[in-house]
Amino acid sequence: MIELNPLSQPPNQADLLLTHEAIQPFIHRTPVMTNASLDRMSGCKLLFKCENFQKIGAFKMRGAASAALRLSAAERERGLATHSSGNHAQAVAMAAKKLGVPAYIVMPHDAPKVKIAAVEGYGAQISYCVNTPKDRQEALDKVVEKTGAAFIHPFDDYGVIAGQATAAMELIEDTPGIVLDLILAPVGGGGLMAGTALASRYFSVQAEAWGAEPHNVDDAARSLVQGSVQINETNETVADGLRTNLGEKTFDIIYKRVPRILIVDEDEIVAAMRLIWERMKIIVEPSCAVPFAAVLRYPELFAGKNVGIILTGGNVDVVGLPF
Amino acid sequence: MIELNPLSQPPNQADLLLTHEAIQPFIHRTPVMTNASLDRMSGCKLLFKCENFQKIGAFKMRGAASAALRLSAAERERGLATHSSGNHAQAVAMAAKKLGVPAYIVMPHDAPKVKIAAVEGYGAQISYCVNTPKDRQEALDKVVEKTGAAFIHPFDDYGVIAGQATAAMELIEDTPGIVLDLILAPVGGGGLMAGTALASRYFSVQAEAWGAEPHNVDDAARSLVQGSVQINETNETVADGLRTNLGEKTFDIIYKRVPRILIVDEDEIVAAMRLIWERMKIIVEPSCAVPFAAVLRYPELFAGKNVGIILTGGNVDVVGLPF
Repeated sequence: MIELNPLSQPPNQADLLLTHEAIQPFIHRTPVMTNASLDRMSGCKLLFKCENFQKIGAFKMRGAASAALRLSAAERERGLATHSSGNHAQAVAMAAKKLGVPAYIVMPHDAPKVKIAAVEGYGAQISYCVNTPKDRQEALDKVVEKTGAAFIHPFDDYGVIAGQATAAMELIEDTPGIVLDLILAPVGGGGLMAGTALASRYFSVQAEAWGAEPHNVDDAARSLVQGSVQINETNETVADGLRTNLGEKTFDIIYKRVPRILIVDEDEIVAAMRLIWERMKIIVEPSCAVPFAAVLRYPELFAGKNVGIILTGGNVDVVGLPF
Repeated sequence: MIELNPLSQPPNQADLLLTHEAIQPFIHRTPVMTNASLDRMSGCKLLFKCENFQKIGAFKMRGAASAALRLSAAERERGLATHSSGNHAQAVAMAAKKLGVPAYIVMPHDAPKVKIAAVEGYGAQISYCVNTPKDRQEALDKVVEKTGAAFIHPFDDYGVIAGQATAAMELIEDTPGIVLDLILAPVGGGGLMAGTALASRYFSVQAEAWGAEPHNVDDAARSLVQGSVQINETNETVADGLRTNLGEKTFDIIYKRVPRILIVDEDEIVAAMRLIWERMKIIVEPSCAVPFAAVLRYPELFAGKNVGIILTGGNVDVVGLPF
């Protein structure tokens, strides 16, 4: 096992290279897929990095592994903890399982049964709480106090950001002979977006990293305009992975390095998701259809370009689909 | 363009190698995917050949190209014709488009609009008919008589069989270091099954080719028992690609070379399809969940083995799913 040093500032190029090497036992090398009909439709060349095929079904595996490997041996032995009802919970549980240490996950009692079952399946101990930010945090504090486990933040952590950056690193490495003009990622808490921006800067000759966000939860776009972290007034979006506000660390990186965050409407997200399902024959979450929805909405920004898109995950209930 | 000789008997090893080379401009090299949780569930090592990612979304592209390249230049110029409401129609239309010749497709007037649109999208001329075998054949005969186009049979044709064989050839070639014990394919008209059996015999050191079929349309299993082509009494199955009976040519090959055809029930097909969607994050048609359903139903036959499965296609309406 390769151990990593804790990061007290944004990861540099060497940090990202070492992170990628260290997390190898935790991740799949996911494929980059292309699709002729989606290219025709959008007027550019699209290169989809398929993190829906990642372990636990989402890129979150990368960040959780990267953060866990930055703990001291003594810290790690006491276990990993987090609060999440989504992919990050599964990622932390899986990382702990692979490290042979306990995982303590705080989940809202009304979380989907299938997600609870997945976390249990990785051997994690689940504590249930009421589904408010305050209750989650209190329940987590209690677990950490009792067990001494290390809290792995879902995004606002340089170790996590370094891990998420490795998806774009692989995308760049696995498209030799193609000069990427843009790499798009959806923006939730901003861990993936910040990591994608760093990877683009360090490993691509010219790619800019742009974000995409649902109009209903456009905190990141507003944060760029205002120059400080803005808060969402609602969490009503089909893109359930993107409801979170930015953190201080992710905001700082995104503010410096992401020139543009595009906004799309709910019906555009659903239509883009359906197109990816029907044309690419792959299952993706609504959240990761957001960048492709932006390509379709703003074609003039992408015409003739080579556009990488991080497809973030595929953990979606196939019953009760939005289309 | 590599032209191929017509086949008056089942393709031999050299025929298959040449076919594979000739159809390269018409096909993608589809990936072989694995999945740790489906392996655990089934007690064997599964290697899925993902023809859902093939051009036009199904393996049928292989057979149509192989058959079209066996026509003389004069025949080809007059165009390609077939009757089909499914993937074969799209495959023939696409093959004609790539060859720069006309395609004439007879489709039932009540075929799904999305399939009609796909065939039109490839530039084919569509004739509509009433949806009975007799009406289809008469409409096709009329088109052939009028245009001089060459009829490409959906399965009972050695050229088509040679093309379908190339999926298993690639599966074997792309799993180096793994000795396949079995290669499973679903059985409709038997083109894929016959081709898979030939490829297994010629290119694998030990793989047997087994079939899988829905109980409701188990004509192939009954044909093996009776020693002659049997007919389905109903076409009521969710696996809409497998309703067809075997042809004489496919039966002969399957009778000689396929030792076993396994039968599964409708609910098992739907459950297997859902598992592939949820765990592998890929979209597959009900027809291609049939072999995996057989693995789950008869685990004692597969325990500890290396099992290849041809996932035949991904052209399914994502609205109105069976689960």
